[in-house]
Amino acid sequence: MSQATSRPLILVTNDDGIAAPGIRNLVESIADLGDVVVVAPDSHQSGMGHAITISNILRMSPHDFGMAGVEAYTTSGTPVDCVKLAIYKILKRKPDVLLSGINHGSNASINVIYSGTMSAAVEGALEGIPSVGFSLCDFAEDADFRTSRNVARTVTKEVLAHGTPKGTCLNVNIPKVAPEDLKGMKVCRQGAGHWADSFEERQAPGGRTYYWMTGNFTDVDKGEDTDEWALKNGYVSVVPVQYDLTAHHAMTELNEWELRLED
Amino acid sequence: MSQATSRPLILVTNDDGIAAPGIRNLVESIADLGDVVVVAPDSHQSGMGHAITISNILRMSPHDFGMAGVEAYTTSGTPVDCVKLAIYKILKRKPDVLLSGINHGSNASINVIYSGTMSAAVEGALEGIPSVGFSLCDFAEDADFRTSRNVARTVTKEVLAHGTPKGTCLNVNIPKVAPEDLKGMKVCRQGAGHWADSFEERQAPGGRTYYWMTGNFTDVDKGEDTDEWALKNGYVSVVPVQYDLTAHHAMTELNEWELRLED
Repeated sequence: MSQATSRPLILVTNDDGIAAPGIRNLVESIADLGDVVVVAPDSHQSGMGHAITISNILRMSPHDFGMAGVEAYTTSGTPVDCVKLAIYKILKRKPDVLLSGINHGSNASINVIYSGTMSAAVEGALEGIPSVGFSLCDFAEDADFRTSRNVARTVTKEVLAHGTPKGTCLNVNIPKVAPEDLKGMKVCRQGAGHWADSFEERQAPGGRTYYWMTGNFTDVDKGEDTDEWALKNGYVSVVPVQYDLTAHHAMTELNEWELRLED
Repeated sequence: MSQATSRPLILVTNDDGIAAPGIRNLVESIADLGDVVVVAPDSHQSGMGHAITISNILRMSPHDFGMAGVEAYTTSGTPVDCVKLAIYKILKRKPDVLLSGINHGSNASINVIYSGTMSAAVEGALEGIPSVGFSLCDFAEDADFRTSRNVARTVTKEVLAHGTPKGTCLNVNIPKVAPEDLKGMKVCRQGAGHWADSFEERQAPGGRTYYWMTGNFTDVDKGEDTDEWALKNGYVSVVPVQYDLTAHHAMTELNEWELRLED
């Protein structure tokens, strides 16, 4: 069994589900770098953020991924559930690296907080595993993953060599460009951005109202050191993401408040 | 209709669902401070993190909250869906403050990233609304909310007076103590902590295997400036939470990597 060897153990997950082209391209691009175990949702789990399944049951089954040497499992859970099941139930040892993706669609800017892809990477980092989420800025089912494969392989080799900075995982987004048009890779900060949502109202057969959420992303950040700037200018963006959410700079201001309780 | 007056507009949501005692205690404790609109999930949504409903439909209905002057709606969605529906579909103007909770159970330390309560507050902050999540360190359905009510009222008055620091919302956790035993309130950082999970394996009628996630929280942080320290020592913890997840301190280290693509 592959998990028993001394090669690096690479845990792979995603949020588009195990049948998505993105995860297959990811596994193919790094399969020779270690022993690969895939633990992925059995269906689409986009927009699940850091959701975990605590009020319902989970299912988990071995899965034939169709690649020699690649062990795979599907679960009924979210991307974060997949990481927890992998670490605490499936794997015999701690993975050397966790890779999530390749997501069909951007997780740059504020999208990072809604992203199941990135939440899986954050969960890996919390467990002390060097973790990376990859996302291609193309929602198409038949997107061209050539550039992404090259990026995933390069970043994975660096992470296997260096680990990741303490308390972080990496959010890697890849622009929709052919390999020959890629300008390079840039370490960036998360650009400020915002979704203006709207809800499309429809009537079900029988007349009951329901809604579909839609939205438009607005990039409000004029900086040239952001992930959005890099992607618009033909670069891969690499953002170190932390799970200490404390706004340390805001603590002084809050300490000036009158936080005294009424009797 | 209450939304048309010039009193502060207070949006209230939670993740335990509209029938939970926590949200009723929250509304009762602040109802006289403004016009209150409740938009909350129609069922338990604990552990949903920043999940949004983009692959399925949403339902939303007016709800009789049973309190004079309080307008209320339930939705089939997550806490973050509730905030988006409130802002983009239900409310006629932007709320002056968003309050989430009072959660039945702690959202201190790393729990903040799994928390639907706190994700609703983060979503409010993203929309430019001063936002606070309240959580009581007691899971019991019949928990004593007297201390929490006092805290919620005090903090809400301060937030109505000052707003919140730019780019943040507040994570307020309340220890399980009687009002007379509360030591005070402390501005804190998010303590480092970790869940060691396990999966209890069971057989469904018919024999198919399923799992329940369980876990033990470990507080690994020895600091006396953390939320966990404050709660253990009888204080309310107030942590400013940000949604810029960039680990700015890690960018220098990453810029030393060889992020050059292979040909």
